Amino acid sequence: MSTEPAVRPGLVRITDVAALAGVSIGTASKALNNTGQLRDETRLRVRDAAEKLGFVMDARGRALSSGRSFTVGMVTTDSFGRFSIPVMLGAEDVLSAGQMAVLMCDTRDDAVREQHYLRSLSARRVDGIIVTGRSSDARPPIDIDIPVVYAFTPSTDPDDVSVSVDDAAGATVLARHLLDTGRRRVAFVSGPARHAAATRRAEAAAEALGDALAAAPLYGEWSERWGRQAVDLLLRTTPDLDAIACGSDQVARGVCDRLRELGRSVPGDVAVTGYDDWDVMALASRPPLTTVDLRLDEVGRHAGRVLLDLIAGSPVSSSVIEPTLVIRESTIGG
Amino acid sequence: MSTEPAVRPGLVRITDVAALAGVSIGTASKALNNTGQLRDETRLRVRDAAEKLGFVMDARGRALSSGRSFTVGMVTTDSFGRFSIPVMLGAEDVLSAGQMAVLMCDTRDDAVREQHYLRSLSARRVDGIIVTGRSSDARPPIDIDIPVVYAFTPSTDPDDVSVSVDDAAGATVLARHLLDTGRRRVAFVSGPARHAAATRRAEAAAEALGDALAAAPLYGEWSERWGRQAVDLLLRTTPDLDAIACGSDQVARGVCDRLRELGRSVPGDVAVTGYDDWDVMALASRPPLTTVDLRLDEVGRHAGRVLLDLIAGSPVSSSVIEPTLVIRESTIGG
Repeated sequence: MSTEPAVRPGLVRITDVAALAGVSIGTASKALNNTGQLRDETRLRVRDAAEKLGFVMDARGRALSSGRSFTVGMVTTDSFGRFSIPVMLGAEDVLSAGQMAVLMCDTRDDAVREQHYLRSLSARRVDGIIVTGRSSDARPPIDIDIPVVYAFTPSTDPDDVSVSVDDAAGATVLARHLLDTGRRRVAFVSGPARHAAATRRAEAAAEALGDALAAAPLYGEWSERWGRQAVDLLLRTTPDLDAIACGSDQVARGVCDRLRELGRSVPGDVAVTGYDDWDVMALASRPPLTTVDLRLDEVGRHAGRVLLDLIAGSPVSSSVIEPTLVIRESTIGG
Repeated sequence: MSTEPAVRPGLVRITDVAALAGVSIGTASKALNNTGQLRDETRLRVRDAAEKLGFVMDARGRALSSGRSFTVGMVTTDSFGRFSIPVMLGAEDVLSAGQMAVLMCDTRDDAVREQHYLRSLSARRVDGIIVTGRSSDARPPIDIDIPVVYAFTPSTDPDDVSVSVDDAAGATVLARHLLDTGRRRVAFVSGPARHAAATRRAEAAAEALGDALAAAPLYGEWSERWGRQAVDLLLRTTPDLDAIACGSDQVARGVCDRLRELGRSVPGDVAVTGYDDWDVMALASRPPLTTVDLRLDEVGRHAGRVLLDLIAGSPVSSSVIEPTLVIRESTIGG
């Protein structure tokens, strides 16, 4: 199973073509598949390299026959946390159906551990790598000569292939739901301002709410306690509000608890929305939370499919998965 | 790296010895290392097989030189859930330091998926397998000719090597802590009676509490809502109780919430304990929960070490990890 690749023409991989042409694997894929924005000179250089090496397009059938380890690496910075687990399960499902075994690489946000794993994956000649993490903010690309797909945590290099979530779209759909259900005095309680996800969500909601935004967004932490504190702050400054949209389900659960303690009914007096659809928070909240599902399993499944395509030399490009609105009693119950 | 094992004498593995002797790998290890309870006939049969094959003891150095895939499979039924994640992270840490790559196999409690993964791991000639799951109840052994260690979820076969947690010891240490802090009217609120963990914890606590057990243990579900309901039941039947020990942190969080709503102070009027030390529940609870830490990361690390020993042919045996008491404000604050 571990025949040396690239020594026989029939076993040439897109990796080898990219290396000879001096381009990234994503660029080689675009050049060979006639997709994407590339200079003609680049496209020709890649095709010359493919011809020299005897690389054949639509490689999946050929690739399946030999020259591969049928193994991919799953690199996470998140210690299999709340965000990376559904991504990894989705990817693992697709890859395992494709007869690929998945190697777990938990880097724990440690650059030294990441390098260790990348060397190990390279030595084991994995066919590809999925990179994921705890944040939807972009990260620097990894430097390795193997097909890579970034899932949930995109690469900062636009030439790389990333599958990301649309954080702003989630906040927009929640804001519209509040407007559609008649709310006109809405506050937004988010996480730490230094987190791009916290500001992206708050700003997208503010834009969609327009005049219905009753106060400037509040930034704090991703915790229930902050949600409880924020209610006290808001009721002093904006006592007539009729909805509180939150940057996470944890914050929203704290908001519901504090409103109930103060005798304000949810959603009768004040509607509340969360973000993430984390069952432990969204379902245990009193009342259960209207929120957005980031569809992280679909992010993972799509990343798995894209990686299989990239390994096979098929055309691939980055994509964005749209979150979906989940309506529960915190906005429309009674 | 994938030289056929067992064709040259220097590459004989304990697996091959066990197969020739017709015994499990655990039994072969015990026979060759002079440990455990075995009949003399069995021990001799294993040693004969080892001699015939040219198997050399203290195999780690030799094994590291060749004949191995340096890959282990991690098989979980738990979809990387709350219990299996810390176990897997601990194991992965030890195995990766031992230069072993870890293949993720998420069976999702599906026997067909489990068989698929076992065939795949066998075909890839992994050096060993760690089996884990969501429950501390024993499970049937997997049928495979490769060293296996069961972590958290032990095997029903006493010949297998399992690393488990001592559920009863955790409940006992919590009960003693309540007695030590002066509580004498204690109730126990557990999960579903059909879960062995729910009954084991309740029965161990009842035994340790003795006369201080103020009511028969209540069984319900593993949820905050059940914790809230249980408070209403208990205060009708046993209004003078001064502590409520719970079978999980989720139940305990619900108990604390309901007591607060009814104007009973925790721990002033009633002390409350959880179980599991699940941060999302134990730290977010008002007040934060005294609970037991199952030390699942140590269960995983120990399972990783034991698997490396088993692969190397060193003596190994099953073991039990003791949980530790974590004291927070729900029993001693004020």
